[in-house]
Amino acid sequence: MMRYRLDIEYDGSGYVGWQRQDEHPSVQQAIETAIKGFSGESVSVKGAGRTDAGVHALGQVAHVDLAKQWPADTVRDAINAHLQMARERVAILAASPVADGFDARFSALRRHYVYRILCRRAPLVLEKNRAAWSTRPLDVATMHEAAQRLVGRHDFTTFRSIQCQANSPVRTLDRLDVVSGAADGLVEIHATARSFLHNQIRSFAGTLRLVGEGKWTADDVEAALAARSRKACGPVAAPGGLYFKQVDY
Amino acid sequence: MMRYRLDIEYDGSGYVGWQRQDEHPSVQQAIETAIKGFSGESVSVKGAGRTDAGVHALGQVAHVDLAKQWPADTVRDAINAHLQMARERVAILAASPVADGFDARFSALRRHYVYRILCRRAPLVLEKNRAAWSTRPLDVATMHEAAQRLVGRHDFTTFRSIQCQANSPVRTLDRLDVVSGAADGLVEIHATARSFLHNQIRSFAGTLRLVGEGKWTADDVEAALAARSRKACGPVAAPGGLYFKQVDY
Repeated sequence: MMRYRLDIEYDGSGYVGWQRQDEHPSVQQAIETAIKGFSGESVSVKGAGRTDAGVHALGQVAHVDLAKQWPADTVRDAINAHLQMARERVAILAASPVADGFDARFSALRRHYVYRILCRRAPLVLEKNRAAWSTRPLDVATMHEAAQRLVGRHDFTTFRSIQCQANSPVRTLDRLDVVSGAADGLVEIHATARSFLHNQIRSFAGTLRLVGEGKWTADDVEAALAARSRKACGPVAAPGGLYFKQVDY
Repeated sequence: MMRYRLDIEYDGSGYVGWQRQDEHPSVQQAIETAIKGFSGESVSVKGAGRTDAGVHALGQVAHVDLAKQWPADTVRDAINAHLQMARERVAILAASPVADGFDARFSALRRHYVYRILCRRAPLVLEKNRAAWSTRPLDVATMHEAAQRLVGRHDFTTFRSIQCQANSPVRTLDRLDVVSGAADGLVEIHATARSFLHNQIRSFAGTLRLVGEGKWTADDVEAALAARSRKACGPVAAPGGLYFKQVDY
């Protein structure tokens, strides 16, 4: 038996999310089917984070146990070949042998996400489902200032889905930076934490957007956090703007 | 009558190209249909350049004459609304009134294109049909050096499609820069000229890629140019890597 770490990119648009769901296309299922295709094994692929429908990944990490010891590059290329044949929008960026103790989910020290908002009058075309669309400009500096009220260890009840299954709403947010992106009108929200609650970053993004539009102040954001009530949250931002970027181990 | 300049973005993937073709989806047709939808007029939209099937635009320019004088922002927003309703992958970035003498094609002083190649082992997912894929790294410096042999006024018979309808194969290439892009493994070829021949940039890209792979030298590129024969050209690069970026007037 050999455990492999897989670094994964996907376009979340056509999937119900990372997690396997009967009869619906999931990223996890796509990879498991591809592995079955090349090795004949029915495996379970464990991911570092469960992304929602429409959410993308630049660097999701998963682990899988295979009975046979294949060269790592063979694992990568063979899974990719089967993913391509099935026309999946998923690619294995890297495969590497890891110790049995490595667990993509539980060994993770920090998870990094980025949320992208493109501000312009015209509807998005090349960025359709790849960024959220704002028809008005956003005040990036004010958004960043407000975001700092959320950094640190807090009860994030306001910013988690009512479906969130985590035992505790308390998390430590290491970083929430709002910056101007490389393209004209692009706003990026960079979020880092050991772990996130369900819909937490999209809840941050929708709330910070209200700040960027001048509808909310940093104090409003702080009050929403203190309310510890889902009702105090801004609208949850669209999934297509969110990218699971990197996991640190 | 009022003439409007339209600045246009499109995802070329689902289109036979810019130019109208009976019963096939074209960008020109999509815009003409959208204009008909909001103004009731059957118009002809004239573009600065005819892009091929699968080629994208970040800043195609066109002009169109409308019987009624609408505010420019109304023209932009109304066309976009109809494009959105028809689920077209086309957006009007800007509309502006111009003098009757303005012609998107004939008034153009310079056209700017960029060709993108992403080098990595894994198949492209988020960049699928948005960049060409190279499984091996390319030598950017050597490609750039070879590209300089093509800059200037030349007979570009080698680098134009046999279907090219231009009267003369002679063009003046102002710029052909090969640079590393912002993302890891991304190679960008920036091309500028008053006008280009059919398939000229994709022929450059395919040929320069041979240089980047170490199969051709700069001297080979120069010899191909001097041959003035289509047979001397490298393979024509995939359309999805090409973007019509900007037109100068």
